[in-house]
Amino acid sequence: MTSFTHLKSAVRLKELSRNLFDLTTGNFNPKRIEQMIAYALDFKLFYSTERVTDEVMHALFDLAEETQAIKKMHAMQAGEVMNRIEGVESENRAVLHTAMRDFFDHKNTAPAAVKAASLAMDELKKLQAFLKKIDGKFTDLIQIGIGGSELGPKAIYLALEAFQKKGIRVHFLSNVDPDDAASILEAVDLKKTLVVSVSKSGSTLETKTNEEFIREAFKKKNLSPKDHIVAATGKGSPMDDPENYLASFYIWDYIGGRYSVTSMIGAVTLGFALGYDHLWDFLRGASAMDKVALLPDPTKNLPLLSALLGIWNRNFCYLPTVAIIPYSRALFRLPAHLQQCDMESNGKRIDKQGHFVDFSTGPIIWGEPGTNGQHSFFQLLHQGTDTTPIEFIGFKESQYDHDLLYQGTTSQEKLLSNLFAQMIALAQGKKSDNPNKFFPGNRPSRLLFTEKCDPYHVGALLAYFEHKVAFQGFMWNINSFDQEGVQLGKVLATQMIQLFAKRRKKEGLTSQDFPLGQAFLRHL
Amino acid sequence: MTSFTHLKSAVRLKELSRNLFDLTTGNFNPKRIEQMIAYALDFKLFYSTERVTDEVMHALFDLAEETQAIKKMHAMQAGEVMNRIEGVESENRAVLHTAMRDFFDHKNTAPAAVKAASLAMDELKKLQAFLKKIDGKFTDLIQIGIGGSELGPKAIYLALEAFQKKGIRVHFLSNVDPDDAASILEAVDLKKTLVVSVSKSGSTLETKTNEEFIREAFKKKNLSPKDHIVAATGKGSPMDDPENYLASFYIWDYIGGRYSVTSMIGAVTLGFALGYDHLWDFLRGASAMDKVALLPDPTKNLPLLSALLGIWNRNFCYLPTVAIIPYSRALFRLPAHLQQCDMESNGKRIDKQGHFVDFSTGPIIWGEPGTNGQHSFFQLLHQGTDTTPIEFIGFKESQYDHDLLYQGTTSQEKLLSNLFAQMIALAQGKKSDNPNKFFPGNRPSRLLFTEKCDPYHVGALLAYFEHKVAFQGFMWNINSFDQEGVQLGKVLATQMIQLFAKRRKKEGLTSQDFPLGQAFLRHL
Repeated sequence: MTSFTHLKSAVRLKELSRNLFDLTTGNFNPKRIEQMIAYALDFKLFYSTERVTDEVMHALFDLAEETQAIKKMHAMQAGEVMNRIEGVESENRAVLHTAMRDFFDHKNTAPAAVKAASLAMDELKKLQAFLKKIDGKFTDLIQIGIGGSELGPKAIYLALEAFQKKGIRVHFLSNVDPDDAASILEAVDLKKTLVVSVSKSGSTLETKTNEEFIREAFKKKNLSPKDHIVAATGKGSPMDDPENYLASFYIWDYIGGRYSVTSMIGAVTLGFALGYDHLWDFLRGASAMDKVALLPDPTKNLPLLSALLGIWNRNFCYLPTVAIIPYSRALFRLPAHLQQCDMESNGKRIDKQGHFVDFSTGPIIWGEPGTNGQHSFFQLLHQGTDTTPIEFIGFKESQYDHDLLYQGTTSQEKLLSNLFAQMIALAQGKKSDNPNKFFPGNRPSRLLFTEKCDPYHVGALLAYFEHKVAFQGFMWNINSFDQEGVQLGKVLATQMIQLFAKRRKKEGLTSQDFPLGQAFLRHL
Repeated sequence: MTSFTHLKSAVRLKELSRNLFDLTTGNFNPKRIEQMIAYALDFKLFYSTERVTDEVMHALFDLAEETQAIKKMHAMQAGEVMNRIEGVESENRAVLHTAMRDFFDHKNTAPAAVKAASLAMDELKKLQAFLKKIDGKFTDLIQIGIGGSELGPKAIYLALEAFQKKGIRVHFLSNVDPDDAASILEAVDLKKTLVVSVSKSGSTLETKTNEEFIREAFKKKNLSPKDHIVAATGKGSPMDDPENYLASFYIWDYIGGRYSVTSMIGAVTLGFALGYDHLWDFLRGASAMDKVALLPDPTKNLPLLSALLGIWNRNFCYLPTVAIIPYSRALFRLPAHLQQCDMESNGKRIDKQGHFVDFSTGPIIWGEPGTNGQHSFFQLLHQGTDTTPIEFIGFKESQYDHDLLYQGTTSQEKLLSNLFAQMIALAQGKKSDNPNKFFPGNRPSRLLFTEKCDPYHVGALLAYFEHKVAFQGFMWNINSFDQEGVQLGKVLATQMIQLFAKRRKKEGLTSQDFPLGQAFLRHL
């Protein structure tokens, strides 16, 4: 396998990057804006504000071709083993989050995908029956989980809170901080509270600790925890236990935590809060975007197109970060989910053959909703010394119908005006004799735009980012599906905990006991 | 004024940066950890995990000396005009947020500072009397404000929520999204609700719109808005109006939005929620750190030391971002506040004489609490191709007393174990024959550590970051106190709104009407 830097297309892109397209001149004009819009489903990707030319776009399409990006996406969705490093000890798994929602048009026919989708459908049916059975019994739901068992489900839940059933409240509990749990317990009536405990292995320390805490609370109220707690876990895990749980919903080893929102990790809570029909729409949106990710034409394959533009900015314009800026308050935790999805997937330094890479992989992902950001860090985006490429997200309609017409426009129109104004300002800049009023421009951005922040479109949006990340991993030839980089911290934390435990027991520490840890401990 | 790159100390630092200290060898040892701790108040700054040597530290101290950093801090706190660009049209103001809390030891004696502190004290006394008068009347408070009138107060309020008075709830309302306001209104009993409307100018569009919305809601309940709404605004602004407000609390033009938390912008809400005594402790902590920022010894002046280490990473190790990682869930919105405080202050490209700079100014600030981050983006921090310097924040004690002793250690001890383990892992890395288990190390971090996330220490923490930002601006010779970079977006947004308004009225658009905006509008 040719390494990324030596790909013919990459060499060509490097040449082209010596003469970046200048957005501050008349070349950034209405015609360019019109020509650089890509369409799929009812999504539009506006990318005229990126520093690309037709030549660059063709070289990027060649890159996708040369790295067989779409073929790998087919392989992933078909259930081939994508999570693997050749020649060294590594995970060795399929990656099948797309099967968790492959219930609609153009179903995948590969046996592994068919089987995974069928198992997922069984769980969904189980969930549907369960939701029917408990209808009206619970007002509150507490989801216990950490990492991917919290970030994604919480970001999506908050994005769709506007569609929540009346009288329902959802709480997320992730940390071992006992007061987190206590404050939730104060807010709920346990008699009417359902708990979803989420752990693939069934043994995540933080999750089990919090679950125990909640179990005790039920017992103190003379309630049986078993009537209130359901598990979302791997089949056969310690949590897959009808003696202790009202129900179990299954996930499998081919679902990574950061890709698990559409599995039972997210579905139980979303189904409970939004109702099964909204959950179904959400899955339908995700599945529709999965199919877009298979389209051979890169001008229609929006996740691939976005991945390519990202690679242009990252590897050829040398921009180390990406800001995700949704112009919708509902998406305010999406950047936190994408931090995990993207940075944990592509923050890697070896390729799939175990060689150290000599190019930049995953960027730093950060961001806040645009309305707040404009009053905060946009100063740096416009006039700072560094350039941050931005992925904007916008919606034509607001989530609620009752928008306010004020001075001739609605709030949503004002919001969109700000969004487009920022794209233009960042791209075009502004000359001025006063250096403090000079805007250099040439700050690239793109906009993913669609109808409404509703279950269907949020599902599609989620899948769009999942696949953008996967495509970048495919083209960089890295494994986007493991996370060895979190292990060392865990090992050292265990050693440090032992120091604390010994100190507490007033046992003497020897010079053998984690000396670096001791040097810090002495000062606490 | 010599430009930053030509400073003698900067030239020396550049030389030293050619041979960066290697943290992956035995040189990173207990002795180094012990020697690289700086102390002030009951704060400790651990910086052995930065890539610095004694030589680098001395050159950094020379940089502080050569740029007269501490002298400028004295000038700022004394009320000299610091917000100015020489020779061009610019703001022309003093910067006196330190006077908002200069009520304790070693008060500033400069006339401008004395006057500002005295005016601030008047407002505090007014607030104290007001809180006494309304005691027991209100259960809920809604703070309406955007940008600095929301981010800082909200971050600090959430940091100290554990100290909140029983039965009190606080809500923040910033966006014009009418449903934001509606959902808050649903949650409160308006009879028992106090509203703080925050706008220095008294005319911020978002804030006034939301205030009107809330006023209507009071009227619908046959309540008089005037009995429920207080203003935090500039004296003489349209909102300084006893006909329409229960009370007015004043701020002044020498308080920038992002430095306004300790002024009445934050104080009304914090005083109401936490009680006056906690507010006073918070101010006492901030003031104590203000005095630390004046200490001539850079090894005791923690904000200066942190600023210097930041400049080392930014300008000599070429690291473009900074992650703020508090090991405390209570500080989960601190990174968002620091995004504004830092990026809006130092995201600049001209120096104080109006010349374009030829070096990097303010970095990109991002971050999440460590507990969540470890399960999310830490993969990239450890094994990504780029290096992110980290500013950790830690506390010896938890906020609540009832910590859980489990398997020999408390939750707080487990939390701290993780914190120190991450610092060591990032610095030292780990060799392995399996390239996927190889950690390169040399990823710099530092830790600000103190006793407890309580009002006093959070006040000091806030001031620490405010002064770190100001020191970096002083040393770069840029104006950290204006924000011209937000203007262009506003101007273009107005043009775009006019397009929407015309379209809505079915008026034809001519080719003169903002053609770039039209090109986008056609596709909505």
